[in-house]
Amino acid sequence: MTAGDIISICDVQNRRLDKGFKLTRVGVTGVKKPIRVKRNGKIELICETLACDIDVFVDLPSDQKGSHLSRNLEIIREVVDDSVREPVNGIENLAASICKSLLEKHDYASVGEVQIAADYFRESVTPNGRETLEFYRLFGEALGKRDGETIKTIGVQVIGMTACPCAMETVRSALDDGVVTGDFPTISHNQRNICTLMITMPEDVELEANDLIDLVESSFSSPTYEILKRIDEAAVVTNAHKNPKFVEDVVRDVLMRILLRYPSLPDNIVVMVRSESEESIHKHNAFAERITTLGELRI
Amino acid sequence: MTAGDIISICDVQNRRLDKGFKLTRVGVTGVKKPIRVKRNGKIELICETLACDIDVFVDLPSDQKGSHLSRNLEIIREVVDDSVREPVNGIENLAASICKSLLEKHDYASVGEVQIAADYFRESVTPNGRETLEFYRLFGEALGKRDGETIKTIGVQVIGMTACPCAMETVRSALDDGVVTGDFPTISHNQRNICTLMITMPEDVELEANDLIDLVESSFSSPTYEILKRIDEAAVVTNAHKNPKFVEDVVRDVLMRILLRYPSLPDNIVVMVRSESEESIHKHNAFAERITTLGELRI
Amino acid sequence: MTAGDIISICDVQNRRLDKGFKLTRVGVTGVKKPIRVKRNGKIELICETLACDIDVFVDLPSDQKGSHLSRNLEIIREVVDDSVREPVNGIENLAASICKSLLEKHDYASVGEVQIAADYFRESVTPNGRETLEFYRLFGEALGKRDGETIKTIGVQVIGMTACPCAMETVRSALDDGVVTGDFPTISHNQRNICTLMITMPEDVELEANDLIDLVESSFSSPTYEILKRIDEAAVVTNAHKNPKFVEDVVRDVLMRILLRYPSLPDNIVVMVRSESEESIHKHNAFAERITTLGELRI
Amino acid sequence: MTAGDIISICDVQNRRLDKGFKLTRVGVTGVKKPIRVKRNGKIELICETLACDIDVFVDLPSDQKGSHLSRNLEIIREVVDDSVREPVNGIENLAASICKSLLEKHDYASVGEVQIAADYFRESVTPNGRETLEFYRLFGEALGKRDGETIKTIGVQVIGMTACPCAMETVRSALDDGVVTGDFPTISHNQRNICTLMITMPEDVELEANDLIDLVESSFSSPTYEILKRIDEAAVVTNAHKNPKFVEDVVRDVLMRILLRYPSLPDNIVVMVRSESEESIHKHNAFAERITTLGELRI
Repeated sequence: MTAGDIISICDVQNRRLDKGFKLTRVGVTGVKKPIRVKRNGKIELICETLACDIDVFVDLPSDQKGSHLSRNLEIIREVVDDSVREPVNGIENLAASICKSLLEKHDYASVGEVQIAADYFRESVTPNGRETLEFYRLFGEALGKRDGETIKTIGVQVIGMTACPCAMETVRSALDDGVVTGDFPTISHNQRNICTLMITMPEDVELEANDLIDLVESSFSSPTYEILKRIDEAAVVTNAHKNPKFVEDVVRDVLMRILLRYPSLPDNIVVMVRSESEESIHKHNAFAERITTLGELRI
Repeated sequence: MTAGDIISICDVQNRRLDKGFKLTRVGVTGVKKPIRVKRNGKIELICETLACDIDVFVDLPSDQKGSHLSRNLEIIREVVDDSVREPVNGIENLAASICKSLLEKHDYASVGEVQIAADYFRESVTPNGRETLEFYRLFGEALGKRDGETIKTIGVQVIGMTACPCAMETVRSALDDGVVTGDFPTISHNQRNICTLMITMPEDVELEANDLIDLVESSFSSPTYEILKRIDEAAVVTNAHKNPKFVEDVVRDVLMRILLRYPSLPDNIVVMVRSESEESIHKHNAFAERITTLGELRI
Repeated sequence: MTAGDIISICDVQNRRLDKGFKLTRVGVTGVKKPIRVKRNGKIELICETLACDIDVFVDLPSDQKGSHLSRNLEIIREVVDDSVREPVNGIENLAASICKSLLEKHDYASVGEVQIAADYFRESVTPNGRETLEFYRLFGEALGKRDGETIKTIGVQVIGMTACPCAMETVRSALDDGVVTGDFPTISHNQRNICTLMITMPEDVELEANDLIDLVESSFSSPTYEILKRIDEAAVVTNAHKNPKFVEDVVRDVLMRILLRYPSLPDNIVVMVRSESEESIHKHNAFAERITTLGELRI
Repeated sequence: MTAGDIISICDVQNRRLDKGFKLTRVGVTGVKKPIRVKRNGKIELICETLACDIDVFVDLPSDQKGSHLSRNLEIIREVVDDSVREPVNGIENLAASICKSLLEKHDYASVGEVQIAADYFRESVTPNGRETLEFYRLFGEALGKRDGETIKTIGVQVIGMTACPCAMETVRSALDDGVVTGDFPTISHNQRNICTLMITMPEDVELEANDLIDLVESSFSSPTYEILKRIDEAAVVTNAHKNPKFVEDVVRDVLMRILLRYPSLPDNIVVMVRSESEESIHKHNAFAERITTLGELRI
């Protein structure tokens, strides 16, 4: 008996079941890999290595005992190696590519799913022109069917700042009325806001993560920055109070900017926008979300 | 001008918008509250206080600027106070009750959503009869529509142990063949497994969280225990190796037990079972999941 | 051979080592247990169950192979059972009690260590008199030596709000100077602040966690509340801007309040105060900490 | 008045206090930056970008109101830029370099502290010779005093596997005795183990993170791998059962390997080794740790 025999004798995963249940998704989660990614735009960031968290799944028919999980890792391994030679063009395209390999290597599967997330850094400029380097999260996902096409999702998570429009007016009224005292017109509570945008689209549509970050970052009361010397700090705080926003406003402004930025994208593209404020006046968070299609938004 | 005037003048949330977008869910997340819960069964645990994490949401029409978030907290507050006088019967019923109040207090909303999670402790017995106290997570959720009924979800998360059936056979073959050496028949890798079961059902169906915990806990290779003196440890390890299971097997065994335990539950009840193994031989996890209806399972 | 024989034959932990290294701490982490705790003060909360996270350790001599970890769980189990009959008086005293049992049950150990953390809820009152229920974290720790006394630590973690004093002045100057424009005097950035206070003391000193929470909560720019209807929201925001504070100010104000509140506590008591602001204008946090003795603070 | 005037007038941080308390550490936490790092050894990894989490602190005298936090970010920014031109030689040396800049830019500070952590990937080889890419955490820290030298810390966190030696013997005895039944000699429980090694040393000592990873990885019952086809899986499982280890054994074996690997390092170097097992038979973890000097270990 050889090692090859052992492998085929012990293919417990491949055993037939009489009365099994099919499974929606079987795979591996929390796989960490460095992937070389090509980016348009800024020359100095044109090729970078992202430390990616990867989850991959396929479905499993009712008559098969197990999914061959090591094949998932072989696929990911190959993709990592390939990216060293030829950097991938966005982690959403990487996800789509892994998704197709999943269906090839798991011939019993009818669906493949891939989710990738990574830290991402990008240059920004403060109101007074100082260059900074800001931190973001990128998401790339794909869902592929054996009998159909692959759809992919590109996503970004951006941290910004919201100033509350309600508190601003309430304070002013309360001061006018003497319910509270002091020389504090126009003050409000403000706080860190985390906004996530995910766009699900046919595989041949290409969006640029940097554009999505721009859309989101311009929808806060103000963007935030790593370094703020005093004049810049004054500008950020003043800008935030000139643009007071609820979590609802952040979501709606991102939606509006998407419509304006992508007038020719097809109606069936799915958009998810989520804004969560780590409220400064509460121990809990405020939250708003919209999940919809571009078609619905355009009505 | 009175405080009442201020309140109505400054109702920024209530302002009309010309060209807004409706929002899928707006609300608060990460609200922590102690809720008194009544449990059937063991007399000594019949009434206990659970420290709950609560998220609540309603949708928002396109022409309204903001949702009145403080109303959400007033509803939760009321429920906490009520539970001191009259303990609630399961956090899924609490979620349904909050959900109805959401639709009452937010008259512009057409949908309400509630998600509650809490730590939970329950007595167990080791193979040799020692009493232990084990730790679980409970989930209670509700989704209510203004023009229809409320559906609710009861869920449990249980930590157990899986021993790999594939490794067990592979090691035996490899030993027989001399590919590896030593006197190690029947060994395998085993690890901590986290299994989650969520059942979504009409509001008038009553399930008992303890029954769900039982279903899940008996579907691992072995349950795990806080205290294992040596004989019990030998029994747990031996039992696990007598019942080697993939993550796929854990999910399927929970599904089978649900069918056997609840033969008369309606076909449209939705079941989600997820099993995740913190693989001892890998740095990543193995994962399996099924989302389906009881009707589909019964075919 | 009996089960008893098995137990003694297989006491692998107790084996002698020739050339071992002693270990600083060996034990278990992440043990979750419900503990009934007695509290002074408010009658309605006088006796409650806290869901505790518990870590316990002893040291290990160089000539002993292993520590008997199941004994740690037996000790914790006993404490849980006892607390049902007779609620413990503070989790710091529970920690001290567990610590002594550790040294009794592990006769080879010279040091025992216990760390307990739990969620905690307490009634509060908004500026305009509305009753709310707020969320905190409690800590209780103990360190005991075989040849000496046990010292214990009581700790609280409180979430509040800080408004930045620097931004407030910078904005005013920048407005005066026309560097930024608009009618925004007195605005600032404000944010969620998490402040932790830990006091390490001889076992016979008794401090009340509620007092520590009061000390910390009054040291923010403003406390925060679960429910704030408009007038209360105006008051909280105004109060915060009347008391702008750096993270440094929060720490120093807690230190000052400790000196004033506890004039007769011994000089050798150790105090740790930490304030971390989830900056609204940055993606990173601001942090300040002091670790010292009461004696040093009194100089 | 110019922008420069505003800056100096509004230097709130620099204000003098009459009765302040000095602070142990003031700074920023959670700063995320990409740093280019040079590594010895494998040519293909000789230069890589690590996504670093950075915390930096200085102390603050009692008479100064605040620390200038933006200076910390300017220092970090400079270091990031420099690393693009000239990759740093280890994040512990980066920490030492930031630490010196902290003391230069904060002339009131007597102590600087820096903590950096990053994900790290390295090639490995399975028992049967398959190449894999494994995931680790790297740590680099520094503590510098104005009137003295800088000490630095290099650290690694490695995930591996432990098989329990106690359960292995207990099961065999229990089987011999008939207390449990079945044909299961030599089985044990095994699980994921996370081992952390930190070495604190004078600034001029140079250690290689890859060596530390090797020391730790060889101290588990077995290393773990991303891809294990069946023969490799059999080898890993068999190897683990040939080398059963408690958490205590892992720590001691790392300590022994450090002594053998670094015979000429000075006695005053501080070593911390921590091993935590995510026990498969319990819901809690097993934990062992030693903090000591090389001198003490050599006695």
